[in-house]
Amino acid sequence: MNSKIKWLREKMKILNLEGMIISNPVNIRYLTNIVAEGILLITRKENIFLTDGRYIEEVQNILTIDDGIVVHEFKEYTKDEYENFFMFCENVGFEEDYVTYAEYKEYMHKYKVNNFQETEKMLEKQRMIKDDEEIQKLRKACKITDDCFNHLINYIKVGQTEKQIALEIERYFKLNGAEGISFDPIVASGKNSSKPHAVPTNKKIDLGDIITLDFGCKYEGYCSDMTRTIFVGYIPEEAKKVYDLVLQEQIKTKKELKEGMNIKTISKMVENNFKINGYDLIHSLGHGVGLDIHELPIINSKNDMNLKEKMVITNEPGIYIPGKFGVRIEDTVLIGKEISENLTKSSKEYIIVDKQ
Amino acid sequence: MNSKIKWLREKMKILNLEGMIISNPVNIRYLTNIVAEGILLITRKENIFLTDGRYIEEVQNILTIDDGIVVHEFKEYTKDEYENFFMFCENVGFEEDYVTYAEYKEYMHKYKVNNFQETEKMLEKQRMIKDDEEIQKLRKACKITDDCFNHLINYIKVGQTEKQIALEIERYFKLNGAEGISFDPIVASGKNSSKPHAVPTNKKIDLGDIITLDFGCKYEGYCSDMTRTIFVGYIPEEAKKVYDLVLQEQIKTKKELKEGMNIKTISKMVENNFKINGYDLIHSLGHGVGLDIHELPIINSKNDMNLKEKMVITNEPGIYIPGKFGVRIEDTVLIGKEISENLTKSSKEYIIVDKQ
Repeated sequence: MNSKIKWLREKMKILNLEGMIISNPVNIRYLTNIVAEGILLITRKENIFLTDGRYIEEVQNILTIDDGIVVHEFKEYTKDEYENFFMFCENVGFEEDYVTYAEYKEYMHKYKVNNFQETEKMLEKQRMIKDDEEIQKLRKACKITDDCFNHLINYIKVGQTEKQIALEIERYFKLNGAEGISFDPIVASGKNSSKPHAVPTNKKIDLGDIITLDFGCKYEGYCSDMTRTIFVGYIPEEAKKVYDLVLQEQIKTKKELKEGMNIKTISKMVENNFKINGYDLIHSLGHGVGLDIHELPIINSKNDMNLKEKMVITNEPGIYIPGKFGVRIEDTVLIGKEISENLTKSSKEYIIVDKQ
Repeated sequence: MNSKIKWLREKMKILNLEGMIISNPVNIRYLTNIVAEGILLITRKENIFLTDGRYIEEVQNILTIDDGIVVHEFKEYTKDEYENFFMFCENVGFEEDYVTYAEYKEYMHKYKVNNFQETEKMLEKQRMIKDDEEIQKLRKACKITDDCFNHLINYIKVGQTEKQIALEIERYFKLNGAEGISFDPIVASGKNSSKPHAVPTNKKIDLGDIITLDFGCKYEGYCSDMTRTIFVGYIPEEAKKVYDLVLQEQIKTKKELKEGMNIKTISKMVENNFKINGYDLIHSLGHGVGLDIHELPIINSKNDMNLKEKMVITNEPGIYIPGKFGVRIEDTVLIGKEISENLTKSSKEYIIVDKQ
């Protein structure tokens, strides 16, 4: 059995679960590398993956004997087989944050389980700590993102629209080794940069604009996430001050990010430093990154949790001045024991594009 | 109150629901035009929309007095206000196919409702029948899709990769009035076209290839969906026969699609006609299209339901010969009383691109 399923079985023992139904495709991929519609059923004796006929061949190709997973087609699995699968299981776990109420009721009916038990994001919590293979994939996703940024610096010109630049990001990723984008890129120029979640518009890039570029790709399922704020033609004095403050906080935060440090304390620190300068941190300081672009842990001043080695999170302070402009600087960071590593490595010096 | 919320209140009366919690953002958009994270709470006395601070301004701009919806910020809504909102409601409906089990339990705790009641896709069923405004938007999405196809016929050349063409589809949509794609485009050439759900690869387009192009866009939230199968350079004899059969069935089906016709019967007809010729219909004949790319009704031989005027569905028979090639032809169709209308109008004659 692979190490992740071994871990799951150990965990199930501790929680007194004799069985488990895993429905969230991201958790299935995490445990098995399977990328297909289906459901993973686990007992202390066996693991089966039920899927659609379309996927059988592909799934068989991914799995090795080491995985110890038997694959069946949904339509060949009978009512009795469903009812008998968990026959000797008193408690069966399910993912209450993924399964809908209707599915929950369907499971009750289908599997005839005595006691369905909530598992409190047990898999999502385990996914916070990345193994070496996962780190390699995250590293690769971040490398492609850095390369894309390098490309953008030369690509971006006055007169292009935000939408055009967003499309170029997507094009670059798809043609340069990534599976695609990890989220819809944010390209927010001029006043639009004052909205942290701006959607690319038909606004044309203008001299004197600030552009917030927030983007990332997926490599073998793993996401990257980076933001750089750049200048068009020249750097307006007002923006420079805000840029310096955000960068200073981003670098300070990076130094705090390591095993044992408290997420709440770090977030409060940034909030306070912004406040002293007359600004608010209006969104979270960061979030976990992995198979999902947003995963645990959330990095904000409500999360009283300590960082652990091999977590991968973002560090993304930002300041937004309504009606004027905004600055956000973000890296994807691998948490270490003594020191953390920025997996995104693009320069954070002032970058001026289309210098006339 | 707008007509859709009026309908909902009538429906609630019939079902003996004094209140309703609407969580699915697509259903919220359908009822209110609101495109924002949040939750819509309805009683016989009032309608409120709870949302994040970021969206307040935008939501206020969309709503009119006619909508009769009061907007509040989540964080300003107190524990008491949640508990009191449904105070005089015995039965409160919720969307059991959207709400997770964890959310369901959270609702129980938060709203202190006596009896939460499943609503059995009541909104999704209503969404099957489109009003004139919705039809206008679907029509526009289909028009942009036809224009995109026209563009592709001239664009596609031997040597391009499937991925490049898929990106061009996305680029075209985003720069020509659509909000974006309604699903990841399928560009499947040569052998790849034998997989109905092929993902675009780095395979280069070659002379003698068949290409299946399955794509659509979103216009003001509403989706289009069209498939054309085209030829590169020339038409291989074997492919021609299959193309003719698929097209013949697609046209026959179109004639059957009208108010009162039975979905199961129509689907069986296509299945049988394929079988007579030695082929199987391995996927559904079609599906509803609207704010979601796949919505009710599903068009297959298990759905014993009659078509109704102003449903919008796809008509997409396909034949797939493993290891060789596949042909699918699909239109988005507006069901009429006597006759239906293809909203996608691109030619289904043999189309040969990059004729040498």
